[in-house]
Amino acid sequence: MNILVVGAAGMLGRKLVAALIQRAALRGRRIETLTLADIVEPQRPDFGGRVETVAVDLAAPETAARLVASRPDVIFHLAAVVSGEAEADFDKGYQVNLDGTRSLFEAVRRAGAAAPYCPRVVFTSSIVVFGEPLPEVIADSHCLTPLTSYGTQKAIGELLLADYSRRDFLDGVGIRLPTISIRPGKPNKAASGFFSSILREPLIGREAVLPVAETVRHWFASPRAAVDFMLHAAELDSAPLGSQRTITMPGLSATVADQIEALRRVAGEGAARLIRREPNPVIAGIIAGWPRSFDARRAEAFGFRAEKSFDDIIRVHIEDELSGVEPA
Amino acid sequence: MNILVVGAAGMLGRKLVAALIQRAALRGRRIETLTLADIVEPQRPDFGGRVETVAVDLAAPETAARLVASRPDVIFHLAAVVSGEAEADFDKGYQVNLDGTRSLFEAVRRAGAAAPYCPRVVFTSSIVVFGEPLPEVIADSHCLTPLTSYGTQKAIGELLLADYSRRDFLDGVGIRLPTISIRPGKPNKAASGFFSSILREPLIGREAVLPVAETVRHWFASPRAAVDFMLHAAELDSAPLGSQRTITMPGLSATVADQIEALRRVAGEGAARLIRREPNPVIAGIIAGWPRSFDARRAEAFGFRAEKSFDDIIRVHIEDELSGVEPA
Repeated sequence: MNILVVGAAGMLGRKLVAALIQRAALRGRRIETLTLADIVEPQRPDFGGRVETVAVDLAAPETAARLVASRPDVIFHLAAVVSGEAEADFDKGYQVNLDGTRSLFEAVRRAGAAAPYCPRVVFTSSIVVFGEPLPEVIADSHCLTPLTSYGTQKAIGELLLADYSRRDFLDGVGIRLPTISIRPGKPNKAASGFFSSILREPLIGREAVLPVAETVRHWFASPRAAVDFMLHAAELDSAPLGSQRTITMPGLSATVADQIEALRRVAGEGAARLIRREPNPVIAGIIAGWPRSFDARRAEAFGFRAEKSFDDIIRVHIEDELSGVEPA
Repeated sequence: MNILVVGAAGMLGRKLVAALIQRAALRGRRIETLTLADIVEPQRPDFGGRVETVAVDLAAPETAARLVASRPDVIFHLAAVVSGEAEADFDKGYQVNLDGTRSLFEAVRRAGAAAPYCPRVVFTSSIVVFGEPLPEVIADSHCLTPLTSYGTQKAIGELLLADYSRRDFLDGVGIRLPTISIRPGKPNKAASGFFSSILREPLIGREAVLPVAETVRHWFASPRAAVDFMLHAAELDSAPLGSQRTITMPGLSATVADQIEALRRVAGEGAARLIRREPNPVIAGIIAGWPRSFDARRAEAFGFRAEKSFDDIIRVHIEDELSGVEPA
C-alpha cells in the first residue's frame, strides 16, 4: 500500500499521518510507502516503511505529475489555501485550491492513460460550500451557494471529483468537514477561532474571549473524528455513492451555551468563568450566515460516525492534546 | 450601449443578435456597437451601428482580453462545446467550457483592475446541471449533480459567475435553459433531437422517428422564449439574486404524448401520422436520467416567462421558421 498525502504538514495532515502509521494498514493492506507533501516540508514521521517528505507548490507545473509518478494506491488531498487567505489573495486561492486540485486529478488521469490506474482519492471539502439562504437543517440534496472564494473553490473541487470519478479516471470520495473543535495550538484570527479557544484556553487555565451570543448554533466535530472520516473515506465501497461523490460528514449541532455547559461539567465552574464576553458585531455578522445543522443520515448510512456531545469532544481534546490529564 | 455576444454564430446566438437589432435598445439605451464572436466568424448582420464579427478560440491566451478591450456594457456568454463533443473530447470540453469561461471572467476582472468596470454578464447554463437522483419537481435549491462533463463545466461556470459577482468583478446573471423545442434546422444525432424532430419534420410533410415511449416527460421552451430569457437577464435588477446568481428558467413540463396531441391540433391527423415509433433502448436509457419538471417560481418572480402549451411552441415555430404559413 502506497499512500500520498497532499497537505501533510497541516494540523489534520499531521494527525492523519500519525493515524496511518499507528494502524499500519489501509484497505486491508500493509502500508509500505508514504509520500508526504505540503507547501512546507512535512516533519519526517517515525515510520518503519519508506517515507518521503517533499515541499512542493501544487499549482506549479509538473508538481502533480511528480507526486503521482509512483502511482499511489490512495491519495489524500487536504492541501488548501485557507478561507481568509483565499479571500484576501484572489489569484493565489484559485491557483492553489482550483488549479492545484485540477492538476492533481489531471496527473492521475494522465498516469492512467499510460497504464491502467484508478486510485482512491479522498478530497476534503467543507461545510462552507453552503451559505445563505439556508434551511434550518441542511441535507446532501441542498444546493451549494458558497459565500467565499474558498467555498467556491471547494465546491468546484467536488464537481471535478465527481466528473473524474464518473469517467473512471479516479475513484473519488469527497467529505465535507464540520468546523473542527477543539483545534489545538494557539488562538488565531479566524472568525471561527472562538469555537475552539473558549474551550481550549480555559482547559489550561487561560482566559478566552467569546465575541458572539451564547445562542449561536453551529456544526462541529473533533480533530480525531475528522481523521477517522478520512480513513473511512479511503476504505468505503464507493459504488453506492452514484453521482454524489461528496458527503456532508456527521457532526454535532451545538450552541455556544452547550459548549460552555460541557466545559463546566468536565472542568468545573472555574474553567467556565475564564470565558470573557466581549461582543464583536463583525464576527457576529459573519457567523450569522453560517450553517447551523445538517441532516447527516447519508454519511451515517455510509458508516461515518462523529461525537454525540461536547463532553465527548472535550474528552478527546484532553486525551489527544493534554496527555489525558484532566486539568484541576 | 456596447454589447459583446460570445457564441454569436450558433442557433440561439443568431436569434439573439437579430432580436437585439430589432429592439435597437437594451437597458434603456440605444445599441451602438455589437461585437459578435464565435469559433467560426458569425454572419455580418444588417445593423445601422458599428458591428464587428470575429472568429476566435475563447480558450486561446489573450482572446478574452481582446474581446473585452472595448469594455462592453453587456456580455452575453453562450459559447460552448456541446454535450456530446465535451463527452467525446474531455480536454477540449474543459478547455473551452471551463477555461474559456474563466478566461472571459478574468479578462473582465483585469479590465476592472485598470479602471472601474463591472458589466452585466449573461451566462447561459442548462438544466443538464441536474441529474439523478432527482425529485419529481426540481427547485432552485436542489443540488447540482451533473451526469456529463458538459453539465459539470456549466455547473462550475455558475459557481465562478457567483463568486466573480460577489466580489463585484462583474454583474452576473446565469440562466439555466430548458431543452429547446422546436430547434430549427436538420435532424441531428443528439439524444434529445427527437423532441424537436417529431414536430419539425411532420410540419413540413416529412417522416420523423420517435425512439422513446409517449409517456416520457421533459422540460421545454421555444427558441424565441430562450432569446427572451437572455434579453430579460440582461435587464433585470440583479441585487435580489443574492448568492444565487443562476436561475432555472421557466418552461413547459410535457410528455411526448402532449407534443403529439398539440401537433395533431395545430397541423392535423396527417402530420401526427408521420411519426414512426422505433424504440431505441440506448436513447431511452439516456433520457431516463433527465429532469422532468421544475419549480420555476423563482424565475417567474424575476419576471421570466415561457410558453404554457405545446400549441404555443408549435405556433412560435410556424411564425419564426415557416414564415407564418401553417402547413396544410
